[in-house]
Amino acid sequence: MKQILIASTSTVHNSGYLEYLLEALKIHFKNIDTVLFIPYARPGGISHQDYTEIVQTAFSKINKVVKGLHEFDDPKDAIESAQAIFTGGGNTFVLVNQLYKNDLISKLKTSIESGTPYLGTSAGSNICGLSIGTSNDMPIVYPPSFNALGVVPFNINPHYLDPDSESTHMGETRETRIKEFHKFNSQPVIGLREGSCLKVKGSKIVLIGSLKARIFEKNKQPYEIETGADLSYLN
Amino acid sequence: MKQILIASTSTVHNSGYLEYLLEALKIHFKNIDTVLFIPYARPGGISHQDYTEIVQTAFSKINKVVKGLHEFDDPKDAIESAQAIFTGGGNTFVLVNQLYKNDLISKLKTSIESGTPYLGTSAGSNICGLSIGTSNDMPIVYPPSFNALGVVPFNINPHYLDPDSESTHMGETRETRIKEFHKFNSQPVIGLREGSCLKVKGSKIVLIGSLKARIFEKNKQPYEIETGADLSYLN
Repeated sequence: MKQILIASTSTVHNSGYLEYLLEALKIHFKNIDTVLFIPYARPGGISHQDYTEIVQTAFSKINKVVKGLHEFDDPKDAIESAQAIFTGGGNTFVLVNQLYKNDLISKLKTSIESGTPYLGTSAGSNICGLSIGTSNDMPIVYPPSFNALGVVPFNINPHYLDPDSESTHMGETRETRIKEFHKFNSQPVIGLREGSCLKVKGSKIVLIGSLKARIFEKNKQPYEIETGADLSYLN
Repeated sequence: MKQILIASTSTVHNSGYLEYLLEALKIHFKNIDTVLFIPYARPGGISHQDYTEIVQTAFSKINKVVKGLHEFDDPKDAIESAQAIFTGGGNTFVLVNQLYKNDLISKLKTSIESGTPYLGTSAGSNICGLSIGTSNDMPIVYPPSFNALGVVPFNINPHYLDPDSESTHMGETRETRIKEFHKFNSQPVIGLREGSCLKVKGSKIVLIGSLKARIFEKNKQPYEIETGADLSYLN
C-alpha cells in the first residue's frame, strides 16, 4: 500500500529545516530506523554529501539514521532495499536529470508503489506527479524527459503562490502559468501552499496542514479544497 | 551587421502593449514596411492569429505591416526573405519547441547574423542567448533542446527581479537561481529589468533604458552595469 507524504516545502517561515514536519514524520516513518535520502536536487548547487548532512541533523531529532543515495555503489539496489525514502528539494531539473542518468525512475516508482514510505519536499514532491511540467524552477540543466514518477495521477505545483494584486511586475502569476499548462496538457494540477502536504495511503489522497489547496482542472474554473479533503477523485 | 533589440518585456506597468518601445522601434525598423512576427510563444495559450493581431495593432502606430509566421506555407522561406523579424513573449518552452519542430533555429540565427533587424521581448529575448536555461517560465512542453540562437555570447534573464526582503515565501530568489545555474553552466547571464533593453549593433552590445542591469559571471560576485554601458567584453 502506497504511503507517501508530498510536502510543498521543507521549511516554513521562521522555522528550522523540516521542523514543522517532524511530528508527522514520527508517524510516517514509525518502525523505521534508516531513511535513504536522495540528495540529487542539490539546492544552491551544494554537494550530495553536504546536503545529506543537513538532512541527518534534522532527522536526528526523531532518532532516524540517514544514508545518502550517493554513498552507495549501486543506487538501484539501495532504492530496492530501502526501509524508507526521502527526496529533498532544490532544482527539479537537476533532480530528474540525475534520476534518469542513474536509470532510477522506474525503480523509484516501483519502490513507492510497493509501499516503501516516501517523503518528498518541493522538487522531491514535484516528481511524484505525472510530469515536472508545473515546476517553478529554472531549467538549468536539460533532462532526458519531463516525465516524472506518476505515483499520483496529477501534477504538483509546490510553493503555490496566490496572485499579488499589489505587484507592478509584468511576469505571469502562478495561476496564469498553470492555466497555460492546460492549453498543452490535460492532467489536473494541485497548487500546494507552503505548509501544506498531501498524504497518500493506498488510493486515498488527503490534504493536510492548516491551509486550503487550489485545484486546477482543464477547462474548469480553479477552485479551493479544504484541509482534510480527499483528492482521490482527481485523475 | 547584426541589428538586434533585446527587450526584457513587451509591456511596462501602466502602459499599452509595446508602447514604451515604439520610439526606439521607429529607428530600429526605419526603412522597413513589413515585420515578420513569430507568434509561437503564445502567451496564455492564445492562437497564432490572435497574437499576430495584437502585434499588428501596436505596429500600426508606427505604420508597419505585420505578417504572422503561421500565415506562410514555408516558414523557412518566410524567415529568409523577411525585411525584419519580431519574436514576442509568452512561454519560452512553447516558443523553442515550435522553432525546433519547424526546423527554424539555424535559419533564424543566420538571418539575424546576416543583418535582418530583429526585436525580441521576454521569451523572444531569451532565445537570443546561448540557451533557455535562465528562463523564468513554466516548462509546460518538452522541447528537443534548451539550446537557443546564441546571437549574443551569454544568457538572458528577462523580467529580472531584485530580491524582496519583505517576502516570507521560501521559494528561491532570482539571484539564487542564477547562481545555481552557474554550478552547471559557464556562460554569463544578464539580468534585464523591466524597461531595459540590449541594443546590438555588429559586435557592440549596449544597455539602454533608465535602469541598471545585473551581470552574473561564474565564480564572480554579481555586479551592476549602468545604462549606456558596452557589454561586448562578456563572453
